[in-house]
Amino acid sequence: MKSQEALVILSGGLDSTTALYWARERFKRVHTLTFSYGQSHEVEVERAREIAERAKVASHKVFRVALNEIGGSALTQADIPIPERKSASEVIGSNGIPITYVPFRNGIFLSIAAAYAEVKGISHLVGGWNAVDYSGYPDCRREFLNAMERAVTLGSKAGVEGRPFTIHAPLISLSKAEIIALGLSLGADYSLTLSCYRGEDPPCGRCDSCVLREDAWRRLGFMDHAIERVIRLRSRS
Amino acid sequence: MKSQEALVILSGGLDSTTALYWARERFKRVHTLTFSYGQSHEVEVERAREIAERAKVASHKVFRVALNEIGGSALTQADIPIPERKSASEVIGSNGIPITYVPFRNGIFLSIAAAYAEVKGISHLVGGWNAVDYSGYPDCRREFLNAMERAVTLGSKAGVEGRPFTIHAPLISLSKAEIIALGLSLGADYSLTLSCYRGEDPPCGRCDSCVLREDAWRRLGFMDHAIERVIRLRSRS
Repeated sequence: MKSQEALVILSGGLDSTTALYWARERFKRVHTLTFSYGQSHEVEVERAREIAERAKVASHKVFRVALNEIGGSALTQADIPIPERKSASEVIGSNGIPITYVPFRNGIFLSIAAAYAEVKGISHLVGGWNAVDYSGYPDCRREFLNAMERAVTLGSKAGVEGRPFTIHAPLISLSKAEIIALGLSLGADYSLTLSCYRGEDPPCGRCDSCVLREDAWRRLGFMDHAIERVIRLRSRS
Repeated sequence: MKSQEALVILSGGLDSTTALYWARERFKRVHTLTFSYGQSHEVEVERAREIAERAKVASHKVFRVALNEIGGSALTQADIPIPERKSASEVIGSNGIPITYVPFRNGIFLSIAAAYAEVKGISHLVGGWNAVDYSGYPDCRREFLNAMERAVTLGSKAGVEGRPFTIHAPLISLSKAEIIALGLSLGADYSLTLSCYRGEDPPCGRCDSCVLREDAWRRLGFMDHAIERVIRLRSRS
């Protein structure tokens, strides 16, 4: 039953775009929230806007929070290089927490999203968090999302007044190839998505995010729709 | 044993200043973090800096997060008036969540504080949260702080690597008069603190925060040190 509203945290990448199309199926009205946080791939913010527009969302908001002032990540601190990878297995097989982990990013985003949702009267928060390919990110695990769900409910007017928040993570246990397959089945438009940590288009092909994405499309036997788009644009010029 | 570092979330008000002096007693090095969030009483940000300087903290940082873009509170939305009160009992006796509640403010602040603390290698977060006078604020309750403590630990590199966060709320169950008494016993300098929701100095005397503060000093039989300071400054000019 499509009866409620949801707020999707949309980065402009492949996962959150899939989550957006998942939410469109499940909720009557879908809103999107994108964070401009001083990320190396700031260009994704504009892509998110275009993706939201194409998905005909009820509203789209960009919120600025300068996590680059905090740093501690290759994505928010200019003097930390983004690692170069040769293959997906090199990324998945790497030990520990990658240097592209942004300190408590998803906790910050969910906190702000909860405040924004509360004011809009929305109880459902949706995101593209995934614990499979990036098992190293602590803030992409269901255990963490459960703790945040409890925190935003206990610490908000909405929660106290009997409108608890639900955090939906439909991709949490899918592989990247499964995510794309799900998105395609839901009509997701991937042509505008940007995953490259360097914000390059065509993508750099060497960062963790590019390598995982390329591997997933190859497994599915398709050409990446965003690559197709670049080729199409180039052939026109 | 003074052996660790702490990060105090300092607003520039009476409660967080007390928490700062409490932390100074308990930790070897104390850092402060102040949020400029588009609050009606933005002047408190400068006061916080002066208070931190006077308390000789190891470092002080101001972080900007525009909660006024989200609104939903008399403190962050210009067209919602700040309520006028006649007495402390009127504030404490009011039903429900006051209109000065800022949606999930403490969750947002704690999330950003955890990220900042993680990068600085700090595991102890301290704040002036209090559940007695403002029982209506959901994000000032120990139950909420416990949930956030779990969330920041589960969602951070520090937590996963065995350095869990501890959220200290030394004032959580004290009355306003007890808070001041505690602070005075610790040598807290209240002369620069600003509580007025309107950011007025001398304080407006009619907002919830002014009314509770005035009542507490009266109970203790002292003149408010911040009022004394204003009188002293005026007598000089």
